[in-house]
Amino acid sequence: MLEAPSVTVSATLAADEALARRRDAGERVLSLASGEIGLPVLPALRERLAAAAGRNAYGPVAGSAALRTAAAGYWARRGLETDPGLVVCGPGSKPLLFALLLAIGGDVVVPVPSWVSYAAQARLAGARPVPVPVLPGQGGVPDPAALREAVARARAAGRDTRCVVVTLPDNPTGTIAAPATVRRLAEAARELDLVVISDEIYHDLVFDPADRPPSPAVFAPERTVVTTGLAKNLALGGWRAGVARLPEGPLGRGTHDRLVAVASQIWSSAAAPVQAAAAYAFEEPPEVVEHLAAGRRLHETVARAVAERFTAVGAELPPVRATCYLYPDFEPLREHLGRAHGVHDSGGLTTLLAERYGVGLLPGAAFGEPGRYLRVRAATGRLYGETEAERTGALSAADPLRLPWIRDSLNRFDEVLGALAR
Amino acid sequence: MLEAPSVTVSATLAADEALARRRDAGERVLSLASGEIGLPVLPALRERLAAAAGRNAYGPVAGSAALRTAAAGYWARRGLETDPGLVVCGPGSKPLLFALLLAIGGDVVVPVPSWVSYAAQARLAGARPVPVPVLPGQGGVPDPAALREAVARARAAGRDTRCVVVTLPDNPTGTIAAPATVRRLAEAARELDLVVISDEIYHDLVFDPADRPPSPAVFAPERTVVTTGLAKNLALGGWRAGVARLPEGPLGRGTHDRLVAVASQIWSSAAAPVQAAAAYAFEEPPEVVEHLAAGRRLHETVARAVAERFTAVGAELPPVRATCYLYPDFEPLREHLGRAHGVHDSGGLTTLLAERYGVGLLPGAAFGEPGRYLRVRAATGRLYGETEAERTGALSAADPLRLPWIRDSLNRFDEVLGALAR
Repeated sequence: MLEAPSVTVSATLAADEALARRRDAGERVLSLASGEIGLPVLPALRERLAAAAGRNAYGPVAGSAALRTAAAGYWARRGLETDPGLVVCGPGSKPLLFALLLAIGGDVVVPVPSWVSYAAQARLAGARPVPVPVLPGQGGVPDPAALREAVARARAAGRDTRCVVVTLPDNPTGTIAAPATVRRLAEAARELDLVVISDEIYHDLVFDPADRPPSPAVFAPERTVVTTGLAKNLALGGWRAGVARLPEGPLGRGTHDRLVAVASQIWSSAAAPVQAAAAYAFEEPPEVVEHLAAGRRLHETVARAVAERFTAVGAELPPVRATCYLYPDFEPLREHLGRAHGVHDSGGLTTLLAERYGVGLLPGAAFGEPGRYLRVRAATGRLYGETEAERTGALSAADPLRLPWIRDSLNRFDEVLGALAR
Repeated sequence: MLEAPSVTVSATLAADEALARRRDAGERVLSLASGEIGLPVLPALRERLAAAAGRNAYGPVAGSAALRTAAAGYWARRGLETDPGLVVCGPGSKPLLFALLLAIGGDVVVPVPSWVSYAAQARLAGARPVPVPVLPGQGGVPDPAALREAVARARAAGRDTRCVVVTLPDNPTGTIAAPATVRRLAEAARELDLVVISDEIYHDLVFDPADRPPSPAVFAPERTVVTTGLAKNLALGGWRAGVARLPEGPLGRGTHDRLVAVASQIWSSAAAPVQAAAAYAFEEPPEVVEHLAAGRRLHETVARAVAERFTAVGAELPPVRATCYLYPDFEPLREHLGRAHGVHDSGGLTTLLAERYGVGLLPGAAFGEPGRYLRVRAATGRLYGETEAERTGALSAADPLRLPWIRDSLNRFDEVLGALAR
């Protein structure tokens, strides 16, 4: 037998599949683990995909001109003027992030906590993740002072650290780094000669427009790569479409060319019919904007309702401002959880909730945090209904919390948290 | 500036894009470079994709149960009984091949010549390709005796060689290794404890059923991974759907699990609407079988016609038996090409043909062969028409060589080869 290279299945996808198996076996489950957004495809996007079903050419590796132009417009409307020639499309932002690590080379700084795949991708790319904690309540952006120290230490130890990943807004915490923190991160990256990979896939899921964070591309335009996709804002995870915006200038141009070369060797192009529909989505006609806004309102309403239930039993939680993620800390319940349930860490807590109550959450340990913490991630994306009709109803409901299937889930969650805290 | 990691754009995709730019600029071009099959999507498949446009869930990393079951049936009908639980779907067989290299680890033996991406993928995966020549007229399968020597040498030098890639039938040569060679390769792999990655994407494009090569999975079932996809047999390159069949037993199960883990971190899943249509294609209902047979007949007719033109000017060519690729050797014209055109190697020959005549071919050097050879690869997939109507006409024509657009291309090719050889 060969020695097994070390790689584990994405924790979010694994949790999702495990819960689906229990549901298929007839068990009552409540899925708060998956990052999937259970909402219907906007009919206009379905139609665009169907109309493009005859497209079977590979097309340009970087994506069709229509899609790259549409994505450039999307960023321009958000204050980032963009050359379509510096846009690269891929089959999801996940493969783009991986290909960027290969294109840039060297080790990568990842925030702690952060999305499950950054560190795993770094290892697959032959690099080592350099973990740097975030500031309290400002997930997704490594503390700039700690970043300086960590990179100095890594370089002193002979490690070739070349980039830093940030998530704005953040997964798993659902929080948003302050503009000053983003600016300081960008300044530190410039000083340390690091490329910034800014994962902005949740950009459109900030509840109050005043809270929208600036991109590091505003402060360090020459070295910031921005990525986004359609999985979260338009619930098109299964369509696999993402885009990256490379910086102007020699560093950006070189990174762009290597990214396209890597893409040509790993995936050739994103599915052509999907590219056609994605181009329409990034053009943001009114129906797309409305659909996105309806999803955002639904996330906000349900995430606030779930957050209230966490705080009602004594868990600590930052204010709910973006995404459909909550990252409660059960530290105040530590003594009780240990005594009543033999639970001493995040993995024990999520295992108990899954096995005794059929409630799927992800442990903070999956996001790179110390195992002893009692933080877990809850995602509301699967609470909106099981059927297309329920999900469509949730999107248009004046008060989604009064819909029976959402109310039942929340009541069940109340019961489970109550039993846990008693 | 960072040091640039070494990676170059896929030669086939680069040649294709370069020629497209010349065509868009109004130049007369004849594209024999791309591996893309310029044929229309079967209407039934378009309909299946359109009907699945509402599918937006990620679904299982390994692909939907329907697609895995259909792919298992596809292989069973070809003599390889297959457990759907050992099938993994990806966004093309290209990403599956790359993920397999990461899942297996170590260095990989690649045939010389071989498809442009095997060696490039190995380097991106942090491995080194171990080049082993094929036997004359039997492309795609490393000479088993030479394989033994090369692996022994590599291991003596401390290299951890773990797998060997074969292509059956072959790209770039269009040839088919003899069954005895496949058997000897499988035996050598077992003796050397190598995993065999058998790229069988051209399996359905063998012109005479009696010529269909056995898979190495017949001879070394415990260690052979088979990959295929829909890009070549059904001209669905731009849809991005491939499948891998992992072996039964502990080695296969371990490789399967690591492959799924890698897939979960790099791409999540293939596009869900594409998976739905791909499941239908792999079920092989009569309309799919007929469409595939029509494409195969067209490849055979046009490839034979192009082959005749190469031999007419004195290039050497193995018999035309499979795929839409020809791999002529201009060695007999070496003296003339040097004297009349200053051409001394395959790169010089393809540059001359592209720049003076607008004819796109790929040099043997792109496939890992020594640069001084005068071998080039010609692909007929782009000769079938520019429009959907022309391509549909080519598929159904009793004698496609009499269709004006194909006849004109062949006449132009005659002129160009004549000018080259004069």
